Amino acid sequence: MRPGVIHGVGLGPGAVDLLSVRADRLVRNAKHIAFFRKAGRAGRARKIVEGMLRADVTEFAMEYPVTTEIPLDDPAYNATLSAFYEECTAHLRALAATGEDVVVLSEGDPFFYGSFMHLYERLKDSNRVEVVPAITGMSAAWTATGLPITWGDDILTVLAGTLPMEDLIRGMSGADAIVVMKIGRNIDKVVEALKTSGRYDAAWLVEFASMEEQRVTPLREATARITPYFSIILVHGQGRRP
Amino acid sequence: MRPGVIHGVGLGPGAVDLLSVRADRLVRNAKHIAFFRKAGRAGRARKIVEGMLRADVTEFAMEYPVTTEIPLDDPAYNATLSAFYEECTAHLRALAATGEDVVVLSEGDPFFYGSFMHLYERLKDSNRVEVVPAITGMSAAWTATGLPITWGDDILTVLAGTLPMEDLIRGMSGADAIVVMKIGRNIDKVVEALKTSGRYDAAWLVEFASMEEQRVTPLREATARITPYFSIILVHGQGRRP
Ligand SMILES: C[S@@+](CC[C@H](N)C(=O)[O-])C[C@H]1O[C@@H](n2cnc3c(N)ncnc32)[C@H](O)[C@@H]1O
Ligand SMILES: C[S@@+](CC[C@H](N)C(=O)[O-])C[C@H]1O[C@@H](n2cnc3c(N)ncnc32)[C@H](O)[C@@H]1O
Repeated sequence: MRPGVIHGVGLGPGAVDLLSVRADRLVRNAKHIAFFRKAGRAGRARKIVEGMLRADVTEFAMEYPVTTEIPLDDPAYNATLSAFYEECTAHLRALAATGEDVVVLSEGDPFFYGSFMHLYERLKDSNRVEVVPAITGMSAAWTATGLPITWGDDILTVLAGTLPMEDLIRGMSGADAIVVMKIGRNIDKVVEALKTSGRYDAAWLVEFASMEEQRVTPLREATARITPYFSIILVHGQGRRP
Repeated sequence: MRPGVIHGVGLGPGAVDLLSVRADRLVRNAKHIAFFRKAGRAGRARKIVEGMLRADVTEFAMEYPVTTEIPLDDPAYNATLSAFYEECTAHLRALAATGEDVVVLSEGDPFFYGSFMHLYERLKDSNRVEVVPAITGMSAAWTATGLPITWGDDILTVLAGTLPMEDLIRGMSGADAIVVMKIGRNIDKVVEALKTSGRYDAAWLVEFASMEEQRVTPLREATARITPYFSIILVHGQGRRP
């Protein structure tokens, strides 16, 4: 029997018509899908494909074991997650062994800070894995602001709000255009770093880019001390333009 | 009469099924399309949509006036390009004034170093302009390498090969993951900068990502002294992973 293919399919930033034609086709034809979600939540990836699935699809919800956040530097965090990914991988491998293809849903582009990467690393040497790139959350975010992100030879730096303050400041200082992902509880730190870098007044907060709940706010008018999971802060480049 | 909408439609990296569903629909239904190309060339954007267009579509090819490259810092370069963009804009505006929608084809994501941005800046205050984000060339490039680009809180920096050596080196030094666009004749400079930064051995050259001609080469095995227009050099991040 020919083993099945495991597809890591990027769904893009959230709007259902921002899936690629390739992803759209794979999702609609899938007999098996798998997706991550937090325990007790629907999961954004699953939500995006609502209404697109075959009636007879089988679904494998991979529920993160860590709901209340263990500190990232606690070894227990790594051990728990690692065991979880192994479990997910074993399930997908068993499914593929029966000759079935599986579509693993992935938010945004799978290879850009995507959780699919953790499965991919464990599967790629034993299985046929095909990855479909997708529109990133940041592309949807800068499009939502109505301003291009990079001109000419602007330098773009992408940072995670989870970085220490010094790293944020250093990263911002060398950049013309800035994207900060993973904001959440880190917003005050990111704001401070932007102020220190002299970029605060030009920064935007984009929540739920391309989704129904999309909201675009100049950062200095944003008041929330915790932002939703789908939040990006960005500063546009101002490079050469004829 | 209601003026037409000007759509800036990102086509993605090149594969025809990597257009978004939204872009695919807009292109197939378009009565008017416009696209940039070099004089005497078909133009990649136009090539991507070959076979998708209505039989009665009207096409507006915007031919760059600068074929042999005037140095970027020559004022004549800016003046010539600026006049060219004004001309294109005038045509699109006249078309929209007759109530017709136009789809302007754009390679990759329109707001990420895209030529459409130059039209957008000139049109956005006078016309209804809608931008469709897309998969970037770099997403297709890292997908082609079979390796994720960023893990955990890796810092990603995107550079243009047209930057001076010092800026390339400085940009690379602060980054975990590196993307260099606009390689072309700058490959020797980029190679030098990567060597100085200690990142040369881990770098990849991806040409024509997602297109038929796609080629992925460890940079140290690449021999060309000039790379095709659709070339990206990248170094993957190695960040935290459970
Ligand atoms: C684990 S990363 C995954 C990124 C995803 N693979 C991508 O390509 O955009 C999650 C972060 O992406 C950002 N993000 C992704 N999609 C977004 C959207 N539609 N709107 C706002 N932020 C988004 C947020 O910063 C979020 O914290
Ligand atoms: C003017 S920029 C346009 C970028 C485009 N808007 C995007 O989102 O990728 C042109 C540069 O993009 C890169 N590029 C775009 N698509 C590519 C592809 N499919 N393969 C390799 N490089 C690509 C090359 O570095 C090229 O010099």
